[in-house]
Amino acid sequence: MNEITKAAPAQVTTGPIIGSHKIYTSPEGRPDIRVPFREIPLDPSANEPPFRVYDTSGPYTDTGVTIDLEAGLPSVRGQWIARRGFATVTPREVKPEDNGFATGAALVAPCPAPQTIFAANPGQMVTQYEFARAGIITEEMIYVAHRENLGRAAAHSLAAERIADGESFGAELPEFVTPEFVRSEIARGRAIIPANINHPELEPVIIGRNFLVKINANIGNSAVTSSAAEEVEKLVWAIRWGGDTVMDLSTGRNIHNIRSWILRNSPVPIGTVPIYQALEKVGGNPDKLDWEVFKDTLIEQAEQGVDYFTIHAGVRLAYVPLTARRMTGIVSRGGSIMARWCLAHHKESFLYEHFDEICDIMRKYDVSFSLGDGLRPGSNDDANDRAQFAELETLGELTQVAWKKGCQVMIEGPGHVPMHKIKINMDKQLRECGEAPFYTLGPLTTDIAPGYDHITSAIGAAMIGWFGTAMLCYVTPKEHLGLPNRDDVKVGVITYKLAAHAADLAKGHPNAKLRDDAISKARFEFRWQDQFHLGLDPDTACKYHDETMPKEAHKVAHFCSMCGPKFCSMKISQDIREDSLRQNGMEEMSKTFAEKGSALYLPAGE
Amino acid sequence: MNEITKAAPAQVTTGPIIGSHKIYTSPEGRPDIRVPFREIPLDPSANEPPFRVYDTSGPYTDTGVTIDLEAGLPSVRGQWIARRGFATVTPREVKPEDNGFATGAALVAPCPAPQTIFAANPGQMVTQYEFARAGIITEEMIYVAHRENLGRAAAHSLAAERIADGESFGAELPEFVTPEFVRSEIARGRAIIPANINHPELEPVIIGRNFLVKINANIGNSAVTSSAAEEVEKLVWAIRWGGDTVMDLSTGRNIHNIRSWILRNSPVPIGTVPIYQALEKVGGNPDKLDWEVFKDTLIEQAEQGVDYFTIHAGVRLAYVPLTARRMTGIVSRGGSIMARWCLAHHKESFLYEHFDEICDIMRKYDVSFSLGDGLRPGSNDDANDRAQFAELETLGELTQVAWKKGCQVMIEGPGHVPMHKIKINMDKQLRECGEAPFYTLGPLTTDIAPGYDHITSAIGAAMIGWFGTAMLCYVTPKEHLGLPNRDDVKVGVITYKLAAHAADLAKGHPNAKLRDDAISKARFEFRWQDQFHLGLDPDTACKYHDETMPKEAHKVAHFCSMCGPKFCSMKISQDIREDSLRQNGMEEMSKTFAEKGSALYLPAGE
Repeated sequence: MNEITKAAPAQVTTGPIIGSHKIYTSPEGRPDIRVPFREIPLDPSANEPPFRVYDTSGPYTDTGVTIDLEAGLPSVRGQWIARRGFATVTPREVKPEDNGFATGAALVAPCPAPQTIFAANPGQMVTQYEFARAGIITEEMIYVAHRENLGRAAAHSLAAERIADGESFGAELPEFVTPEFVRSEIARGRAIIPANINHPELEPVIIGRNFLVKINANIGNSAVTSSAAEEVEKLVWAIRWGGDTVMDLSTGRNIHNIRSWILRNSPVPIGTVPIYQALEKVGGNPDKLDWEVFKDTLIEQAEQGVDYFTIHAGVRLAYVPLTARRMTGIVSRGGSIMARWCLAHHKESFLYEHFDEICDIMRKYDVSFSLGDGLRPGSNDDANDRAQFAELETLGELTQVAWKKGCQVMIEGPGHVPMHKIKINMDKQLRECGEAPFYTLGPLTTDIAPGYDHITSAIGAAMIGWFGTAMLCYVTPKEHLGLPNRDDVKVGVITYKLAAHAADLAKGHPNAKLRDDAISKARFEFRWQDQFHLGLDPDTACKYHDETMPKEAHKVAHFCSMCGPKFCSMKISQDIREDSLRQNGMEEMSKTFAEKGSALYLPAGE
Repeated sequence: MNEITKAAPAQVTTGPIIGSHKIYTSPEGRPDIRVPFREIPLDPSANEPPFRVYDTSGPYTDTGVTIDLEAGLPSVRGQWIARRGFATVTPREVKPEDNGFATGAALVAPCPAPQTIFAANPGQMVTQYEFARAGIITEEMIYVAHRENLGRAAAHSLAAERIADGESFGAELPEFVTPEFVRSEIARGRAIIPANINHPELEPVIIGRNFLVKINANIGNSAVTSSAAEEVEKLVWAIRWGGDTVMDLSTGRNIHNIRSWILRNSPVPIGTVPIYQALEKVGGNPDKLDWEVFKDTLIEQAEQGVDYFTIHAGVRLAYVPLTARRMTGIVSRGGSIMARWCLAHHKESFLYEHFDEICDIMRKYDVSFSLGDGLRPGSNDDANDRAQFAELETLGELTQVAWKKGCQVMIEGPGHVPMHKIKINMDKQLRECGEAPFYTLGPLTTDIAPGYDHITSAIGAAMIGWFGTAMLCYVTPKEHLGLPNRDDVKVGVITYKLAAHAADLAKGHPNAKLRDDAISKARFEFRWQDQFHLGLDPDTACKYHDETMPKEAHKVAHFCSMCGPKFCSMKISQDIREDSLRQNGMEEMSKTFAEKGSALYLPAGE
């Protein structure tokens, strides 16, 4: 008898984020739907219940759970999918080129977690869009409604002056998110739930401008290291800090098998750019690409469970010459590959020509479109030029085609755009693409700070998120310079979380302000630990604090480390508040002062 | 004979920023006015002259110069000031309380650099505002005009499509900055040149919304370490990376003597908050403050050469109760000190009551007002509330008083403001304060990211800079948590430089875009070293690059470290451009494609 190899202990980051624990709650009447949140207990002096926040980290931050990468994550959607009666299909056979012809010791084994491959039967509804159009509310819709609703009851119960007061620029933010609202938004094409029927491990998330702004983090193998656990750890790390979706941009060897590890262990939607793998299969020469190898790659990845594909079908032959006089030409990898192909063959893009077939394949598994902006500007100088906007207009045309075919669609956007040109992008995208969700990279608002492009782009990201972008693709400090390491990924994710949140606040999301208020209150009351724990990155906040005031006692100190005990404005301010409680009619006094003030207290010399 | 103690070798950072060298140029016909710039030579393949950038770093980055902290910096303005015939005054005697009663070994010696103290004779014009109103163009005005004009000739000569195209929100950005334009802006109160006549080492800088957006960095002694050189190094480090002005927020012992070291060695305007030192003199108890100790402190610091004072004269007794119900009360140190005083004595603020006298003192030395926002919001929840705006209205009233007295004025602003409430602040400030320059702290656009508040605030800073703020006070990653170290200061300064530049770009400053274009061009042409050197932080950019591709050879590699040689979109894009050069009439082709395209290339299935 063969001895069964036990799965190696998890080589990924697990355990709760400091100062919090995971909880699951269910929508009324649906105990089968368990939605994760993170609960942050506050200091007893606050006399408040634990604060709940949205959570993307998956079971990795649960307590008392064993993570086994070989077994994959528990199935969240398995029963829902099973009930829909999709066809079980024999998977496409894995070919040597899927893994870049890696063999022997160089070949990473696929994830052994068992997987049944589903596809829609002919004529059967399969996508969230199709269900929504048919008036059917899916479990995924109920799930995301419950997830987005977090805190709205609390926000609703607050006094009038505490209520959100944003400028939504035409977004329609309901006081409460109902499953029916979710359905109607998806049916109108204004939101998507990227959820391949072959990705049952997914904790569904909704992307649309009438929901919380989401962020994407990119991961990808590096040439040198590529153990499966290392790649899964990149995912786990990115979602631990708040990545709502993750794009796997791997190239080179083993990408098929590593993708299986990622998908079986991902609670968030996984996106890919299939043209990257197709290019690998033809030896890296764009000229050798064709529809057959691309189609084969789509099916390969759809069966594995990828939730959304970036498809650069808007890079048309006619647009390529529009880029010739640009400051930085074509900076999208997918865009340049397709431009190269169009020029080499002097033919229209095969992605554009076969777009109907692409839709048919993606619909079958409910893979969402992320229509790629292959001609996005690579510098402020190229922003909003004819090449960019011509492609955007074509993406609008393709959105209509994809919707007719029953697919979910979002649209990718720039890139590098100075502040005064950002809103034009958003408005044009909404107009051209029928309000399909916009998914932008930054944009970077200046090009002069390599090493700080997470910040140059966070400025643009917060603004475009405010204006209506549904998901922000993160940028790390290494952008333009090199590959991000673990710290860079964390900085990128936290930076984009704060940009997305700043956008939610400005839009007037009813529940966004609660977290700001909770942390501000903790700050004012010198509840240092609460302040750290309520923040996006408790570890860093605590570490920074301890650099100046390392003693434990200082964490209950009633003064800030900046001013010291003598000068603390917060302390003085608290005294003032206490005074005001002692003196009845403080507000009355204020009125009296305001009325008589100028008479009582003339400036000297007047 | 006593042996003369030689000045210790400079204990501060000196030498050029990597990949650049300092130059000085003079306005036509004024060889006595030498304005510093930094010149970045480009790779010969670029076939372009060295790129010039604005520089704030002072002689510390010059080559072949000896820095001697005991001697102080060379006098830039000495002769200009001398020609104006001010009175020479016997300086106020230094009192033990000026240095917090430090004695013996604990007392830091003052900077031995010789200083003659000037003050205006009775009835004599002294401030830049008075000269401007009288139609007189000072050397300081000529200096800043030349400084701001950098690159405008180059911008002017570019093709139409390369010209700046921003939205200025009513700012009036001239194609060329003339000394007369500077004079008229100062005369209208729309700009200031903070330039105490006792700070001859100053390289003048102009602050106003029709000029480049400026940034301020704060420094301050720490309780433990306080050698004079250490404090000067903080200044030198902050201006090396781009600080346009520096505020010395020191408290505690030795602050008078350390300030003398800072001023004699500072090429940038130094700002202070005199109430901090006044409070030290009365043992840290706000209740014991009075007009006499404050007045004495103003004179003490004005004689030393401080260029601008934060004066919290807008915190009136009547406004204090307005803060009682706030989420975070009063967060300004100066504001809370004055609020405490008002409440304790139940009297109108002595700063407000003695405002005329304050003006008279500050005018005598041309110390500029920075009217403090003592009631600025400390959380998003408190933004734009009655307390904040009541104070702003009073600052508007005080601006008129200060102008009548002949003083230069700028106005401090928030703080913590969500994005949708930022423009309201700017518009109200311009309206209430007669377009006096606005000087804001951030604002932070969300409160949920302690440890990342340089970023939450850079978003707000870029936006408010775009809308019209003249100077942005930096925020470091340690904000709310502790005291910034050397790295934090650099990150804060660079972050604010990029925010200020993003604002300049969006406003449509004629010369701002040149640097973005230069770096984008270098990027597209794989001139890696040029890309690093043209950036705000060449060291970090180079370091990040080398982490992924450490070999020297890779710095001339014709591909990016992100994609590797096979996938590089920039490379493909360059090929496309070459193709376009080979094929004549590429644009003609584009037109043909665009017209016939849809007929030639129908999407499959249509």
